[in-house]
Amino acid sequence: MLPADLPGTVRDALLAPLVDHHCHGVRRDDLSRAEFELLINEGGSPAPPGTTHFDTPFGAALRRWCAPLLDLEPHAPPAVYLARRAELGAGEVNRRLLAGAGVVAFLVDTEPDAAELLSAAEMGRHGGAAADELVRVEQIERDVAEVAQLAVDYLDDLGDELAARATRAVGLKTVIGALCGLDFDPSRPSRGAVIAAANRRLSDPKERLTDPILLRHLLWNAIDVARERGLPMQFHTGFGAAVPGPAASGPDPHRLGGFGADPQRLGGFGADSHRTGAHRLGGSGADPHRADPARMGAFVRALQPLGVPVILLHCYPFHRQAAYLANIYPHVYVDVGLALPQTAAASARVMDELLELAPFHKLLFSSACHGVAETGYLGAHYYRQALGAALAARLRAGEWSAADAARVAHMIGSGNARRVYRL
Amino acid sequence: MLPADLPGTVRDALLAPLVDHHCHGVRRDDLSRAEFELLINEGGSPAPPGTTHFDTPFGAALRRWCAPLLDLEPHAPPAVYLARRAELGAGEVNRRLLAGAGVVAFLVDTEPDAAELLSAAEMGRHGGAAADELVRVEQIERDVAEVAQLAVDYLDDLGDELAARATRAVGLKTVIGALCGLDFDPSRPSRGAVIAAANRRLSDPKERLTDPILLRHLLWNAIDVARERGLPMQFHTGFGAAVPGPAASGPDPHRLGGFGADPQRLGGFGADSHRTGAHRLGGSGADPHRADPARMGAFVRALQPLGVPVILLHCYPFHRQAAYLANIYPHVYVDVGLALPQTAAASARVMDELLELAPFHKLLFSSACHGVAETGYLGAHYYRQALGAALAARLRAGEWSAADAARVAHMIGSGNARRVYRL
Amino acid sequence: MLPADLPGTVRDALLAPLVDHHCHGVRRDDLSRAEFELLINEGGSPAPPGTTHFDTPFGAALRRWCAPLLDLEPHAPPAVYLARRAELGAGEVNRRLLAGAGVVAFLVDTEPDAAELLSAAEMGRHGGAAADELVRVEQIERDVAEVAQLAVDYLDDLGDELAARATRAVGLKTVIGALCGLDFDPSRPSRGAVIAAANRRLSDPKERLTDPILLRHLLWNAIDVARERGLPMQFHTGFGAAVPGPAASGPDPHRLGGFGADPQRLGGFGADSHRTGAHRLGGSGADPHRADPARMGAFVRALQPLGVPVILLHCYPFHRQAAYLANIYPHVYVDVGLALPQTAAASARVMDELLELAPFHKLLFSSACHGVAETGYLGAHYYRQALGAALAARLRAGEWSAADAARVAHMIGSGNARRVYRL
Repeated sequence: MLPADLPGTVRDALLAPLVDHHCHGVRRDDLSRAEFELLINEGGSPAPPGTTHFDTPFGAALRRWCAPLLDLEPHAPPAVYLARRAELGAGEVNRRLLAGAGVVAFLVDTEPDAAELLSAAEMGRHGGAAADELVRVEQIERDVAEVAQLAVDYLDDLGDELAARATRAVGLKTVIGALCGLDFDPSRPSRGAVIAAANRRLSDPKERLTDPILLRHLLWNAIDVARERGLPMQFHTGFGAAVPGPAASGPDPHRLGGFGADPQRLGGFGADSHRTGAHRLGGSGADPHRADPARMGAFVRALQPLGVPVILLHCYPFHRQAAYLANIYPHVYVDVGLALPQTAAASARVMDELLELAPFHKLLFSSACHGVAETGYLGAHYYRQALGAALAARLRAGEWSAADAARVAHMIGSGNARRVYRL
Repeated sequence: MLPADLPGTVRDALLAPLVDHHCHGVRRDDLSRAEFELLINEGGSPAPPGTTHFDTPFGAALRRWCAPLLDLEPHAPPAVYLARRAELGAGEVNRRLLAGAGVVAFLVDTEPDAAELLSAAEMGRHGGAAADELVRVEQIERDVAEVAQLAVDYLDDLGDELAARATRAVGLKTVIGALCGLDFDPSRPSRGAVIAAANRRLSDPKERLTDPILLRHLLWNAIDVARERGLPMQFHTGFGAAVPGPAASGPDPHRLGGFGADPQRLGGFGADSHRTGAHRLGGSGADPHRADPARMGAFVRALQPLGVPVILLHCYPFHRQAAYLANIYPHVYVDVGLALPQTAAASARVMDELLELAPFHKLLFSSACHGVAETGYLGAHYYRQALGAALAARLRAGEWSAADAARVAHMIGSGNARRVYRL
Repeated sequence: MLPADLPGTVRDALLAPLVDHHCHGVRRDDLSRAEFELLINEGGSPAPPGTTHFDTPFGAALRRWCAPLLDLEPHAPPAVYLARRAELGAGEVNRRLLAGAGVVAFLVDTEPDAAELLSAAEMGRHGGAAADELVRVEQIERDVAEVAQLAVDYLDDLGDELAARATRAVGLKTVIGALCGLDFDPSRPSRGAVIAAANRRLSDPKERLTDPILLRHLLWNAIDVARERGLPMQFHTGFGAAVPGPAASGPDPHRLGGFGADPQRLGGFGADSHRTGAHRLGGSGADPHRADPARMGAFVRALQPLGVPVILLHCYPFHRQAAYLANIYPHVYVDVGLALPQTAAASARVMDELLELAPFHKLLFSSACHGVAETGYLGAHYYRQALGAALAARLRAGEWSAADAARVAHMIGSGNARRVYRL
């Protein structure tokens, strides 16, 4: 469905295998309709009575573009789609959709203790691609907090564990934007303040971490590791850092069957707010406007001399701000990840807005795949559609040469990721 | 003027009668040019010397689309338009424009003491439609403050009056965004704090209410009533919460003739900032960026377990943020009200941006009609044009089926409003 | 390259000479590739290793549209472009590009002590146009701070110098948005507070001014002068107020040859952050979200009774907010300056978004030309393209008459500027 007037070289560049530099595992098990609906919406709540999460841009896109991969007609009704999905089984559906995405390498934000999700290696196998790991630093912190006895242990263990986990990762990732907003104090907290905060933390280590002192301490430790190992640091920004309300904190795990007892395993907008435990705390966290990456300007400037690449994920609806940061700071990279499959039929404009200011060597592709493989397939699909539309418009207007268009498509689709992640 | 390639079922759905879920009364009397110009602009000030408020997107739209309803050629000059308007008389003009809007029911934010404005029942009669009432809670507060003698009376009367007025309303409405910003403390204020604030308030009850404690008290009382009666709560957000400057606080009522002595009766962007008395206070109130509905995230989450629908009005230029809230919170609904007729020839993009993330069962239509009937006619006109353009684009791209497009047009145009307002 | 279906009168209006109401001088000397790359990017840092600032929307636009003026094919490679530029010499290149912009008058934010930049008079001569001066008030403050001995001298000299410099200017300009954000306290600071702050200031007068008290004092003094002389006041808003990181503070002046020792001479997004000395201070200043002009609402309202026109420059990505302010406040004017050449192939949407709410008598054209003449040429080019596209779309849809389209093009291109600057 690429524009018919695209030159062959540009078309080839768009259809070439992608590096998906940010995704999550998908569910390996068969899903009920209630489970499936929760996984295709970002809020973690069922749709209101009489309505369905299929009546969203993403739901319409799924019926249109995923149905044919399951041998259905486009626009298949939800019940038909789900029946066919069950008939094929989750394994076959995952293989068809992940392989259909045309990805050469997945960089996966994994959750070691989430047995119902495909691991990074499994994502690769299902999708016929290589796979590497991203380390979510807040997950390491939780693991450390749950076993540390003393604040001093907590500090030591955190540094050790970050270093250890980084050895097998291609990048680090933080969801600090959802936990305390991106307008955090950019300075390193003092050791005294960290010790005091760690003592409070250890009295309730199962709580989601929202203490800005410990979050900043964790982030600066992660930056040290990233610097030492030459790894980039991903920041979850924009929407996707949403905090569900208290009533949403528990789609009843029993009703949902395969979920187990931990609602933070639910999918979600980037799956990041959910997995950081937002559900558990009944709605605490930062409001969406505080996830604007522009608010992180002073911190971004502090990282510039350190040579640690800053990768801004999702960004919508602050993607213009993100593109601007990528334009003026040499170490800042940007994608619109989840925004493309979520805005679906309207995604071409979102991509085009990103292209207003972002340098071509700073743009990356990610599907932000999570929960169900439809997210991964649609992420790749709409990325190619949206970039194809943008390039076709520039070629029709005589603004770009075909050679430049093909070159830029290769850069965004895989070249930039290979360079910044050293793949 | 709908796209020629729209299937008949979709065209019919777009042209079906609308539920206008948020509007105001229009002036019943004939207007001078100065009065008319003030009513088609949101700022409450005359245009600078040598310029005219007709030289705006709304002014151009009015000349294009309203002129033919007054038997004039499209693009009639302002003087010709106003002469014909005077010739026909306000009653006939109001009938032609309101009936031309193709509305089956108006939900009207009425002002009982504004005799120059059509009442809800009159709006219905002029437009050939049913009419119901919305209750602006800040208006109730003013009425109560003006008669209460003691703080304790103020509190009791407020609760009583809210409950009494709600019995004949289909929804409640607040303009707190314009008065103290949407980033207010989401918790209920303590009774002690409210009593103290009420005592201050009663010393000057004619002032516009800007005290956040009393505004929050009022809002939580209104939420209690809404919950009890199953009513939704409308929030004025985004632009439309503008605060005019001190020089604008008095288009001289004498010069304006029919206005009477109270400048808060002026129209305006949603008519809400003006009618809350912004003019009187010479420019106090919250700046536009504080009317971003995303800033109300914590309050929205607090309402989720209560089952009170939250309706976000206008939203522009934060409509993407609003759509996102509607996407993730099951009780949040959204429109772009006044933004469509005000952005006029450019309104298709605004609508399409709203459609990026908003679930189809969460979108509503409103004209935000106020002051002059042209606002109501153009609200309906541009709604149909913009949604028609969005649906046509999705059909051409094969993204949606025609059946889905027709179904969604019915939902947004009237079905969702019937459900949420229980019409 | 204007749309082929534009009526001749509209085409003529678009191609008529423009008043460029905000620009800077360009370099008079020949530039190395490293120097040139720094001047076409807003961040003040070289592109990362293996990449180039030519791989940006602006870089692609330069190769497409400026190359033919240097007798090259469109899309000439960067090395070919720069070789031809060197061959022709800076003087000839500046003449071709500035004259090619089709400007009848430049209003120039000059830097008296920057010998490598063309003066206002020289900009006019190279471009075949008249030229007038804008006074950057923070530059006056620096001059005064460097010579004043006592706080009382500082205050007196500041007022005297503002008044003196204003006598030969057509407007004043402030970059307060980059220095302390636009959410500054809108009130006049007390004399006591100013004296105390001035004493601190005089102990280190070479530092960039970031003290909000002195900045507000300076601004209010400038407003007094503007009011007295009937001059408008320009505010740098939105992106362009970016603060470079510490590592970016020194593209080594020796490596860059002709720059001299003062990194604040570098170009930049509007050249404003750089010239205010952001480079010197290693990254202090306000983050981008604080340059939203909506945050200046209370100050704007305070100016309304004074009759001082407020001109909002650049504004992107807050141009919708800026247009709204221009819609509701009779003394507010707006452009998108630098955003058009920087967003280049995507600039039509930016212009169209500005047109959503801005009154036609409030829109202005500026190129924000700075550093290299390509910025001036592309500013005019994309302005005409973007406005042409917007007008053509409105004519095709029957929204506007051709007469109105031609009239509005004249107003925005030169008429409004002639009125507000009294040219």
